Amino acid sequence: MSRVTTTDLYEVTMAMSYLREGMDRPATFSLFVRALPPARGFLVAAGLEDALDFLSDYRITAQDVQDFAAVLNRPAEDLAPLLGLRFTGGVRAVPEGRLVLAGEPLLEVTAPLPIAQLVETYLLNQLSHQTAIASKAARCVIAAAGHPLVDFSLRRTHGPQVGFHIARLGALVGFAGTSNVLAAAELGIPAVGTMAHSYVEAFPSEEEAFRAFARAHLGPLTFLVDTYDTERGVRTAARVLRDLDRGPGSAVRLDSGDLGRLAARAREILDTAGLPGVRIVASGGLDEYAVDRLVRAGAPIDVYAVGTRVGVAADAPYLDSAYKLVEYDGRPVMKLSSAKVTAPAPKQVHRRPGYADVIGLLEEPPPADGHPLLETVMRDGRRVTPRGSPAEARARFLTDLAQLPAEARRITDPVAPRARVSDRLAALTDRVRRDLETGTRPPPGPPR
Amino acid sequence: MSRVTTTDLYEVTMAMSYLREGMDRPATFSLFVRALPPARGFLVAAGLEDALDFLSDYRITAQDVQDFAAVLNRPAEDLAPLLGLRFTGGVRAVPEGRLVLAGEPLLEVTAPLPIAQLVETYLLNQLSHQTAIASKAARCVIAAAGHPLVDFSLRRTHGPQVGFHIARLGALVGFAGTSNVLAAAELGIPAVGTMAHSYVEAFPSEEEAFRAFARAHLGPLTFLVDTYDTERGVRTAARVLRDLDRGPGSAVRLDSGDLGRLAARAREILDTAGLPGVRIVASGGLDEYAVDRLVRAGAPIDVYAVGTRVGVAADAPYLDSAYKLVEYDGRPVMKLSSAKVTAPAPKQVHRRPGYADVIGLLEEPPPADGHPLLETVMRDGRRVTPRGSPAEARARFLTDLAQLPAEARRITDPVAPRARVSDRLAALTDRVRRDLETGTRPPPGPPR
Repeated sequence: MSRVTTTDLYEVTMAMSYLREGMDRPATFSLFVRALPPARGFLVAAGLEDALDFLSDYRITAQDVQDFAAVLNRPAEDLAPLLGLRFTGGVRAVPEGRLVLAGEPLLEVTAPLPIAQLVETYLLNQLSHQTAIASKAARCVIAAAGHPLVDFSLRRTHGPQVGFHIARLGALVGFAGTSNVLAAAELGIPAVGTMAHSYVEAFPSEEEAFRAFARAHLGPLTFLVDTYDTERGVRTAARVLRDLDRGPGSAVRLDSGDLGRLAARAREILDTAGLPGVRIVASGGLDEYAVDRLVRAGAPIDVYAVGTRVGVAADAPYLDSAYKLVEYDGRPVMKLSSAKVTAPAPKQVHRRPGYADVIGLLEEPPPADGHPLLETVMRDGRRVTPRGSPAEARARFLTDLAQLPAEARRITDPVAPRARVSDRLAALTDRVRRDLETGTRPPPGPPR
Repeated sequence: MSRVTTTDLYEVTMAMSYLREGMDRPATFSLFVRALPPARGFLVAAGLEDALDFLSDYRITAQDVQDFAAVLNRPAEDLAPLLGLRFTGGVRAVPEGRLVLAGEPLLEVTAPLPIAQLVETYLLNQLSHQTAIASKAARCVIAAAGHPLVDFSLRRTHGPQVGFHIARLGALVGFAGTSNVLAAAELGIPAVGTMAHSYVEAFPSEEEAFRAFARAHLGPLTFLVDTYDTERGVRTAARVLRDLDRGPGSAVRLDSGDLGRLAARAREILDTAGLPGVRIVASGGLDEYAVDRLVRAGAPIDVYAVGTRVGVAADAPYLDSAYKLVEYDGRPVMKLSSAKVTAPAPKQVHRRPGYADVIGLLEEPPPADGHPLLETVMRDGRRVTPRGSPAEARARFLTDLAQLPAEARRITDPVAPRARVSDRLAALTDRVRRDLETGTRPPPGPPR
């Protein structure tokens, strides 16, 4: 699967035209989310590592040129100028795990116009969907209020590839484990999971199933107790765990029904059986809303397993992201079309206390009480920072989360802080807009 | 990326236990969608080809065993019984493109219990997300009412891999093209797309951009006309197309604003300019709801480009799918837990006129006016039918769609037909439930 041809056709048609016209001067594109979904009070920047891998490896091969030619119905010679093209530009970006707001660039690319254009589709894809899913997972962490969370989403994500991403993004925001074996093995995340209803059904009785499971697996056990009747299942689990003296560290899992009520009943049964150390795991259609309700109601659930709804970011499965040209050959540019106005010029975001962020021009002096969000991560097509680890991203996430205003952390009806545009950026935006509306061509060269 | 370790951990822990207990008799698992999302009147079966590729290639390697051992913190020897395991079973399934209803098996696997269990996660993942997205795309086809539809979703799908699936699934339900170069090249789908707003902005003026584009590309052109002012953009496009005598087959694209009103204005401008053959393409946040409104309002739009919302199936991004054990070693099994009762035994679905489908036991005689939906596609781990082409799947889809009741085709508030359970399946379900509730162990061997 070529990552070069994993692109919208128009990137190719535009690049061909740029090359034909000799338009290969530096261009800056800014990738940002225009507006947050109503159910989001913040976003968690994610996808950067995959984006940088893509840019580092980018090279148009002869096969890619053939594929371009085939879908355009043109002779391969016409596409020859694209052959061998690499990404030779610079990238400034918000590191993974940081919280960002609407309008704040997640990433800015500066490179010769044709190549800066060609990489659009892949960059948008990775940053958009990974940021959408990391943000959903982060809300689960808030809702769980310190209870461990684990990821069970692989079976219903949009393909196995994103199932891998989600395991990583969960770890990035503080999940305790994943059911995804590949992700656990490759990323060193704890793997979790025990048995399905089918396992219990395959044996003549629930008790025989639990005992067989205990024979195959040393150490703590987790028994799924709701295949037939949940209370009976908990009693059976308690009996088997006590008989085998395997209580400490073990757990029962509830996967259906009124989880709060069943967890309370299970806790009573386990405590009465002298098994206060046996934990309760809840799963089954959980997301941050359900976890929040259960935690607030004081349900005696020790571990929350979230799955499908988190893995597809069900209430906000996409972001209104854009990759916009903001400068070409030193000339700031912008788009005026209704409701999608973009501000011109390369930018920096300064985070100030209380998320009073300021989006300004790259070269503006920072506010005294702010620090910049975008860092230079690639220069001349090469990474200039080491590959970030999930642990580092998690540390950034937790630091940013601790300072997020309470109303942005809310699970229901969150209110996102709004970044302010600096006076200089606002003035430049007005000037470029006026020039465009009056048809005045701005002077070439650095305009500010 | 190993497809064997792309699995939930519990498949592995269960398989280990089954092997230890000598439980390797044939098991049948049924994969179905429990209930349709409220916004769906039908589902389009999809994902089968990828599922069969997975099963055909399945083989647990030494590396897989090492990965299993690593995440389980166990010595690799403990996992040795898994080494070399292949899928040796049979598969009956609904061919891609056919319409299915809630409760109807999309696929049934019969294989030795450990291997039938191990393939669960991957099968569920592929069939669930591909069916969800194909069903969304199918609704767009209904809404477009004969107008060509194209897929622009790649930039915001959940990863590039599913972007490829979507291009294929769009073609499967009758889309006319995709922006995805890789998918177009590999699948022979027409590739579509022209220019972005950034292209227009990179030139000193819109007209210079259009003229440069025309120099690079022979044949029909599509100009994006809403970068600055849409009506002015259409006039500029008309002037350039007329000057260059490139009108026939060319188009203008509207990507923002009130598309119906702007299309009407664009049509007037183009007609007045003597360019009745220049078509109008609309894009920008379109889905079946928006397309339906525009078509019903008589907007003079010739081609609809759908993207993000379709690519993520935004209003129903996942299906309530399940992979349930229905028979082990000739014994029908089922689950009783609240709201998730499953019917036992291998099944067949018979489609009757008006979608009066009957879900029955596999060996039941078919109703006189019905035909079976599930076909044998794999036996002893090998495909027994040729790989299906998108064209064949499309033919099945169109045939099924033509017979779908009008209320199920509705874009808003569709009403899905409901399949009936056969008397014999209902009687067996009652009997197995009674046995489970009274703790009676069913007799071994074929029970019916």
